[in-house]
Amino acid sequence: MKRLISVSELTKDEVEAILERAAYRLEHPVGQSLAQTVVANLFFEPSTRTRFSFEMAVKRLGGETLNFQPATSSLEKGESLEDTVRTLEAMGVDAMVIRHAENGIMRRLSEVVQVPLINAGEGTSEHPTQCLLDLLTIQRAFGRLNGIQVALIGDVLHSRVAGSHLNLLPQLGMEIMLAGPSAWMPEKLPAGVRLVSMERALQADVVMMLRVQKERMSEAELPDYSAYREAYGLTVERASRLKPHAIIMHPSPVNRGVEIDGEVVDHPQSRIFEQVRNGVAVRMAVLEFVIKRGLSTNVCHEAAGV
Amino acid sequence: MKRLISVSELTKDEVEAILERAAYRLEHPVGQSLAQTVVANLFFEPSTRTRFSFEMAVKRLGGETLNFQPATSSLEKGESLEDTVRTLEAMGVDAMVIRHAENGIMRRLSEVVQVPLINAGEGTSEHPTQCLLDLLTIQRAFGRLNGIQVALIGDVLHSRVAGSHLNLLPQLGMEIMLAGPSAWMPEKLPAGVRLVSMERALQADVVMMLRVQKERMSEAELPDYSAYREAYGLTVERASRLKPHAIIMHPSPVNRGVEIDGEVVDHPQSRIFEQVRNGVAVRMAVLEFVIKRGLSTNVCHEAAGV
Amino acid sequence: MKRLISVSELTKDEVEAILERAAYRLEHPVGQSLAQTVVANLFFEPSTRTRFSFEMAVKRLGGETLNFQPATSSLEKGESLEDTVRTLEAMGVDAMVIRHAENGIMRRLSEVVQVPLINAGEGTSEHPTQCLLDLLTIQRAFGRLNGIQVALIGDVLHSRVAGSHLNLLPQLGMEIMLAGPSAWMPEKLPAGVRLVSMERALQADVVMMLRVQKERMSEAELPDYSAYREAYGLTVERASRLKPHAIIMHPSPVNRGVEIDGEVVDHPQSRIFEQVRNGVAVRMAVLEFVIKRGLSTNVCHEAAGV
Repeated sequence: MKRLISVSELTKDEVEAILERAAYRLEHPVGQSLAQTVVANLFFEPSTRTRFSFEMAVKRLGGETLNFQPATSSLEKGESLEDTVRTLEAMGVDAMVIRHAENGIMRRLSEVVQVPLINAGEGTSEHPTQCLLDLLTIQRAFGRLNGIQVALIGDVLHSRVAGSHLNLLPQLGMEIMLAGPSAWMPEKLPAGVRLVSMERALQADVVMMLRVQKERMSEAELPDYSAYREAYGLTVERASRLKPHAIIMHPSPVNRGVEIDGEVVDHPQSRIFEQVRNGVAVRMAVLEFVIKRGLSTNVCHEAAGV
Repeated sequence: MKRLISVSELTKDEVEAILERAAYRLEHPVGQSLAQTVVANLFFEPSTRTRFSFEMAVKRLGGETLNFQPATSSLEKGESLEDTVRTLEAMGVDAMVIRHAENGIMRRLSEVVQVPLINAGEGTSEHPTQCLLDLLTIQRAFGRLNGIQVALIGDVLHSRVAGSHLNLLPQLGMEIMLAGPSAWMPEKLPAGVRLVSMERALQADVVMMLRVQKERMSEAELPDYSAYREAYGLTVERASRLKPHAIIMHPSPVNRGVEIDGEVVDHPQSRIFEQVRNGVAVRMAVLEFVIKRGLSTNVCHEAAGV
Repeated sequence: MKRLISVSELTKDEVEAILERAAYRLEHPVGQSLAQTVVANLFFEPSTRTRFSFEMAVKRLGGETLNFQPATSSLEKGESLEDTVRTLEAMGVDAMVIRHAENGIMRRLSEVVQVPLINAGEGTSEHPTQCLLDLLTIQRAFGRLNGIQVALIGDVLHSRVAGSHLNLLPQLGMEIMLAGPSAWMPEKLPAGVRLVSMERALQADVVMMLRVQKERMSEAELPDYSAYREAYGLTVERASRLKPHAIIMHPSPVNRGVEIDGEVVDHPQSRIFEQVRNGVAVRMAVLEFVIKRGLSTNVCHEAAGV
């Protein structure tokens, strides 16, 4: 594994190896496996949360980061994004973590450099590390992935993490149900994915609320928030009717009172802040895999504490 | 000591222990006591000076920082500040250094997280580390704090450091005099604090000029700078009439030619750049205390160079 | 060597020592010679490329950086640049890397602080580390500097690197030819520098295309890009007529299709991305020289890997 652009490039074994390594990192959150390495964070869209998560992952493992500031960039001087990543490669960075609004750009960039690229959210297409951290959260809750029913509720269309989930979860034997406004449902459903009513979705093992992606919508597309909450929000009342073993997830940041009630964020069945914690561990694992290739074959034999 | 929100939470012993540790750090400005730790700097108001000071403190002790950029933050996505600090806690940061324009926010945030918070300037209320670095500067100039007369001159009302001084200095046996436009004097004076004329203030042991906080005033509140300088500025002429042992202080950045003449910044009795130097040492000490709790009880026995 | 403000302050021996050290750093790109040091990057003009290059250099050698954000700076509070650098010196930074639009500012600042300053591009005057990385690139291509013919083509007037080249290269026995619009040629030519036709320039050993510095021109000064390319651009056709041993250079970022065709960037004779790589090595060497003074006398005897 030398990059992470789409979850569709991952084998089942690779997914398992990453999750195993991430679980190890939850227990050993500090190390030196990235000592002497420098990772460039190129966030062409504002994001504190995901950038901090990657930065924590790098720094906890002894590495350093370069943080790109869109507002103060050479791009203003008319440089292409291809030239930017080639320049950073020439400078010797060990990996680049990239977030960008344009679908397909990660693949285009990966054709001009050899240095490992990690997709930190691309357009409306994919967000692989978010997908993996969700899997880690589910695996830790249920002890397995195979056979788990996951309901994705809300703005599937504009959700990059939903894009990754639709790609990967069915390959792992998981069942996906979608609920939400029909305008926000994908046109074509992958095998193993079906549309359901909100009531049915609430009976899933994993009730994953999606963020209403206001910033990716035109004014006309924006829903009436109060009506949206009534139809598809995870209200306190709805949360009280989940299966006892079910868990509540959300990729964050949440719109409190829109897709989820503020109180539900702290519901006993909520795993929302655990997702954040798992995110750092998953990113540690992914960075170790793409920068230290060897890890992928001997994760279990590596000396503890490394 | 597990946080530093207000100086009023510090015992006299804690103040002394921090100053002792900071003095030690002036002699041993490099160490590894924060190795493997990550400190988040959340500056919701622009500040290079204080952020750099904290960053230096962390990095000199082997730690790493995450720097929050207000302009590129998730807050734009409608996330509450409470969710932001809880998210950073879930990511595993070891402490958060926060500056914010809103009075009372530090206490509100400290109720939702366990991770140590350090107030790096809040509204017009407090700026505890600036207060402590001023104390260190005074202690090094006079060999003691008890009985020292401190004149705070100018914009007391909008000064967060004056807020901390009014809280703490009287508890340490120090005497505070205030001089300045009556509109900028506090409505209620704590015990041991009195209003004096500019001439009387100039006879204090410590002549502490306060910055005219233009950025916290409306257009109508702004003084005529020339008249202000004439009435309350530390001009070259006034500086020549201080007591020989007196010291000149200013929290910086200075408005040259307003509250202080440019030449006075480099006056032999000025400690303005020494305050900056002491600031890094004090912040090292505070970080060590809140992150490495044990230090508070055995500061003197710790091995040199750690 | 305790600062790098202008190449005119460097002796020939110092240039050679820096290039020798930089060549060593190309082979040993990781070290600990800057461990426990903190370098402040003060970029008052937007620049990702040069800032990242310096940041890589510092971090590869075990040091840390403070990154100044113009938009969030104390300067907004009316502080002078002199006070800013004195403040950072008081905080204990080990060196400052400064980029600024104003000619002469580096020298002015160097008069108020003792801490080493490194010019990372000043106004239209100088860009010493870019000059040194160009020399490293030329030396590695030809095995020597003495006697090499360098053609600087295009916007000499607004080019800070051309300013450094005109200062230093003739001192090293190199020959400079200038070609480009007469409005962009310097008024006075240093000894050993002459104006030539574009055709003659294309016969040089080093064909160094200069960036059209749009951001330093008024609307009226901007050329017609298509006419400019026809007259002075390094088109695919022109590149095909260079001497077989000649090399193509450009300080980057390039304006593809203006001063150079996109295809020529990847021409076999192009050294444009090698320049980027060499830039990190040169900056490592410069930082080691200004921060660890002793290195200048015993570069060759230092233990490998340090």
